[in-house]
Amino acid sequence: MPKDTAIRAVESFAAGQWLRPGPGARPIESAITGQVIAEAGNDALPFADMVSWGRAKGADLRDMTFHDRARMLKALALHLQAHKQTLYDLSYDTGATLSDHQIDVDGGIGTMLVFAAKGRREMPDGKIYLDGLPEQLGRDGQFFGQHIYVPKQGIVVHINAFNFPVWGMLEKLAPTWLAGMPAIVKPATATCYVTEACVRLMLDSGLLPEGALQLVTGGIGDMLDHMDCQDVVTFTGSAQTAMHLRTQPTLLQNSVPFSAEQDSLNASILGPDAVPGTPEFDLFLKEVQREMTAKAGQKCTAIRRIIVPETLIEPVCEGLRAKLSKIVVGDPRQDTTRMGALVSNAQKRAVLEKVALIGAEADRIFGDPDSFDVNGADPSKGAFLPPMLLHCSDPDNAQRVHDTEAFGPVSTVMGYRDLEHAVTLANRGQGSLVASVITRDAEVAREVTLGAAAYHGRLYFNNRDSMAEATGHGAPLPHMVHGGPGRAGGGEELGGVRGVLHFMQRTAIQGSPDLLSAIGSRWIPGAHTDTNKDHPFTRPYGDLAIGDTIHTGSREITLDDIEHFAHFTGDTFYAHMDDAAAKANPFFPGRVAHGYLLLSFAAGLFVQPDPGPVLANTGLDALRFMKPVSAGDSIAVRLTVKAKTPRNDAYGEVRWHVTLTNQDGDLVAEYELLTMNAF
Amino acid sequence: MPKDTAIRAVESFAAGQWLRPGPGARPIESAITGQVIAEAGNDALPFADMVSWGRAKGADLRDMTFHDRARMLKALALHLQAHKQTLYDLSYDTGATLSDHQIDVDGGIGTMLVFAAKGRREMPDGKIYLDGLPEQLGRDGQFFGQHIYVPKQGIVVHINAFNFPVWGMLEKLAPTWLAGMPAIVKPATATCYVTEACVRLMLDSGLLPEGALQLVTGGIGDMLDHMDCQDVVTFTGSAQTAMHLRTQPTLLQNSVPFSAEQDSLNASILGPDAVPGTPEFDLFLKEVQREMTAKAGQKCTAIRRIIVPETLIEPVCEGLRAKLSKIVVGDPRQDTTRMGALVSNAQKRAVLEKVALIGAEADRIFGDPDSFDVNGADPSKGAFLPPMLLHCSDPDNAQRVHDTEAFGPVSTVMGYRDLEHAVTLANRGQGSLVASVITRDAEVAREVTLGAAAYHGRLYFNNRDSMAEATGHGAPLPHMVHGGPGRAGGGEELGGVRGVLHFMQRTAIQGSPDLLSAIGSRWIPGAHTDTNKDHPFTRPYGDLAIGDTIHTGSREITLDDIEHFAHFTGDTFYAHMDDAAAKANPFFPGRVAHGYLLLSFAAGLFVQPDPGPVLANTGLDALRFMKPVSAGDSIAVRLTVKAKTPRNDAYGEVRWHVTLTNQDGDLVAEYELLTMNAF
Repeated sequence: MPKDTAIRAVESFAAGQWLRPGPGARPIESAITGQVIAEAGNDALPFADMVSWGRAKGADLRDMTFHDRARMLKALALHLQAHKQTLYDLSYDTGATLSDHQIDVDGGIGTMLVFAAKGRREMPDGKIYLDGLPEQLGRDGQFFGQHIYVPKQGIVVHINAFNFPVWGMLEKLAPTWLAGMPAIVKPATATCYVTEACVRLMLDSGLLPEGALQLVTGGIGDMLDHMDCQDVVTFTGSAQTAMHLRTQPTLLQNSVPFSAEQDSLNASILGPDAVPGTPEFDLFLKEVQREMTAKAGQKCTAIRRIIVPETLIEPVCEGLRAKLSKIVVGDPRQDTTRMGALVSNAQKRAVLEKVALIGAEADRIFGDPDSFDVNGADPSKGAFLPPMLLHCSDPDNAQRVHDTEAFGPVSTVMGYRDLEHAVTLANRGQGSLVASVITRDAEVAREVTLGAAAYHGRLYFNNRDSMAEATGHGAPLPHMVHGGPGRAGGGEELGGVRGVLHFMQRTAIQGSPDLLSAIGSRWIPGAHTDTNKDHPFTRPYGDLAIGDTIHTGSREITLDDIEHFAHFTGDTFYAHMDDAAAKANPFFPGRVAHGYLLLSFAAGLFVQPDPGPVLANTGLDALRFMKPVSAGDSIAVRLTVKAKTPRNDAYGEVRWHVTLTNQDGDLVAEYELLTMNAF
Repeated sequence: MPKDTAIRAVESFAAGQWLRPGPGARPIESAITGQVIAEAGNDALPFADMVSWGRAKGADLRDMTFHDRARMLKALALHLQAHKQTLYDLSYDTGATLSDHQIDVDGGIGTMLVFAAKGRREMPDGKIYLDGLPEQLGRDGQFFGQHIYVPKQGIVVHINAFNFPVWGMLEKLAPTWLAGMPAIVKPATATCYVTEACVRLMLDSGLLPEGALQLVTGGIGDMLDHMDCQDVVTFTGSAQTAMHLRTQPTLLQNSVPFSAEQDSLNASILGPDAVPGTPEFDLFLKEVQREMTAKAGQKCTAIRRIIVPETLIEPVCEGLRAKLSKIVVGDPRQDTTRMGALVSNAQKRAVLEKVALIGAEADRIFGDPDSFDVNGADPSKGAFLPPMLLHCSDPDNAQRVHDTEAFGPVSTVMGYRDLEHAVTLANRGQGSLVASVITRDAEVAREVTLGAAAYHGRLYFNNRDSMAEATGHGAPLPHMVHGGPGRAGGGEELGGVRGVLHFMQRTAIQGSPDLLSAIGSRWIPGAHTDTNKDHPFTRPYGDLAIGDTIHTGSREITLDDIEHFAHFTGDTFYAHMDDAAAKANPFFPGRVAHGYLLLSFAAGLFVQPDPGPVLANTGLDALRFMKPVSAGDSIAVRLTVKAKTPRNDAYGEVRWHVTLTNQDGDLVAEYELLTMNAF
């Protein structure tokens, strides 16, 4: 923020133009001083044009492959990494501490990097993502089904919460762009100046195709009235605003996917085994304290209900009081401050109202909002609150402690009689983003999962074995889905490739093997094979086409081969050595060849001895032995290029479909071979 | 139906009781005679009790494993198979022909059988379904993530359409029960007597746990007001009713999953290559004729828009007129009848209203509703209509032909200039269940996919190569997802296991390898291994526990071994034979052992020679070679029970996690081995 008293004009980026605040602009205050530091909003923004401009430009993103988009994400993440101090500097006025900035800024950048890596590793270098295996729909293999995903052809509107102005945007943009959709971001007004700065960094980097990103600071106008069946709307924030958005007639009429991620009444359960004196007990206190105070408790995943064995209420409350009393509240720019301010005085008032509601069912046992120390700031000006711990002695008959979200450093302790009771209490949240369980007992973990997973988007278990690497109750990871049923909004985001697919349409494709292979760039049995070219092991990666095939000559397997292989390898399994014993086995007609003997001979039939483009056999998938091979049988191999994936600038992975057939043409084994091939 | 004139009282099955029609009951007419043949509905049904009774009984379904539920589905399907004539006999009064009954009744039974088979083959014999692979979330493997699915703990309300009173119920019940959820079925009143008969057959079979199935015939009362975050509502029918249901406040407030499958403006595109004289041209006419007339056009997947090259409008219209003129309309009980009646005179009137709307933009070129022959029935009493073909000469400027669904034997021909134009017209449906393309050109198939898949739940390609096995434009298959974006409702059903997961909650689980292995019944690297028992190859299936492990002794690989293996197998790849050439390869330090040599020696280290519980090595998955092995290195194997799946009464499949390490403890290869083990 500028050091002088000028008010920052937070702009929007609409249809290629930066536009200043205009009619309807709202003031934004500093969380620390309460002074107005910025303004944002413009009722005259061209909302309809933003939608149509973004949609039209979306074709450029769809023309890129998943790998192209992944490389773009990585470059953007590295660009932000190099400029993150700018974002830190701005963020103090939101009330956040340096470690809060790291969750927000570094967390956002890290999420982009994970999506970039997964895009390269887990998605094809193409425009169509295949979902599952082909389904043979007719007896003779002339008609198949395959599920695919393609990007939706509209635009995504992301309506975000105030608490993570950077991560909240980037964790949604990464999967959106990887899917191939353009986005309009509408951050919460209270912290939109940080988001605006981050958007400027990305746009100025020149790494994004035009139209991939637009920004609305302030109100969103009538934008949602322009949504159609190819658009997507996501929302993160309160249940009340979510309800307002999800009932917009245009969204309902056009079946526009609307994904909400609402704050929820997340629980943390202390396992019955985690008694005082165990590492788990101390771990529990530490996680609760962290989740209550990080970001001043303004996290949708924060622990709101602390569910502990009835017999341990006293030591838990004792332990938490001791920990919370060490939390220094104050100006986040001060090194000694552990917890900053809430985002605004309005937010502080809202939290106190909710605490009063919960207070009808629970006693406050730590933290007095009317009397607490503030480090280096004026408590009457900034939006400061102390951590507040409550105790509910009758959680079965309580309601507010299970449904009232005080979005600040507030949590309620309650006791459980047995594990089933603990599960019942956790589920009283009627759908939460996360519950954690501190336990080392696998039976406890399994029982909680069977009882409570249906009510939660995430279950987080921790104990002494995992605590050195555990990522925290409250941290949504790019690898794992984030969202929850019911009260938590019913939405889902992140989860690696799962999160990308929310911005794509799943379509069932049915047709002949030839057409399906061409559509999916992946050979399907029965599709055309080309055997008129040179041996595919002699041709570089770039020259190989899906369907290129070689049929090898055949080789007889003799009883000597089997005997010899058995003694050479040490695998003298009776099915290979003893005819009578083999016959008694339900799978074999008598002595049969080793499966690995067949694989080895198969390689002998197709491998080219001299240096060439095939650098290495790196693996093998989905090997199935279909029919035994007896002495006197012979095998021949068919090897077909199934799929190709570039891995770096020098080589790519080729996936071969391999079949071994005997002298009668019967399939004896089938597998996918992986090789690394030079370009 | 009774042969006398008594009116059938169609009952509901509520909280364990069959209840007769009561206040608010509605009359049901025969489609053939227009006479009232039944009545259904009871405003005094205990709607709230049905929900709570079903929810409470749901625990019994959840206590079964996926395999238990799959066996139940199979038994139910076979029971219905034995009694299907009853359902055929009843169905004629809905206007349907014998071949329509087969689509409905046999199609429903077949769908249950496919889910039964997939439940056994593709799901575990447990209560938790694993989604994807574990994600290692820390550097040292102490903390992992795993996505799982568990059944939701509420009830599913299925609100179904009139056109398929049996299939429409069974295609939803199969995945619901396989997931482990109880259901309440509410069929459309017009044909609910057929559904009631099918429900009776299932309940009387004694194969279902109590509470798994309830039935509401007639109005649904205030049932949806009782839905909460663990319930699911599905709907099949018109866009208008869907809108009414999806805006119910309780559903929105509690984020209740609501899946709608609405009739849509499905297109069929004649590929530019499919000119008259090709098998594809004839196939196109045949598919269009069938989709217009099957079930008298009352299919949500029927072809409403016939999109053909502008130059081929004339021959297409000619051909269709010829085919449609052969359709005998009349009493479906008559052998010579090819197309029966619409479900009711009300439905007939609704169709004629829609035809009039479309008629403002298109000319009727076949079928006069005021003058056509009816075979063996009184056209002034029954709900008969002729097939009606329209032609729209300006589809770009038309609107009604793209958005008005006449739910009867009605379709409109329109011309396209080029393939891009054809895609644009198909997408004007603003989201459809299905589009078909008759083409043999793979480029056409790929272009339509990239352009139109985002607007469709299914794309169906057919040509001479697939037509002998192709399943039809209009047939939703249990293997493939059914649903579509936008106008089609935005829902999704079927699709094999995908369809089952709609009735489950996906939850991200995080924790130590020990806890995650116990939760998922699948061993994760780093989890506890038990090496204190006898060699696991000597113990029967039932004695093996997840994590049981053997460490073998080690074996040195000599240069002689490599030389010998190369000459024995014929695999003389230079990396095994020529030190200098191998060194020039980016992956190898010099001559290295063959991967298959390592696999073979590994087997020699752990295979037990004598007959025992391991019957056969049936396959291998996910083999990766991580580090080359040179002459002088030695390998040892660790073999761990990863997962178990019973396959029949005599044996089950054991999945082993196998690692090969060298003398330094470095991982050189990793794979999953499959064996079949006797009980």
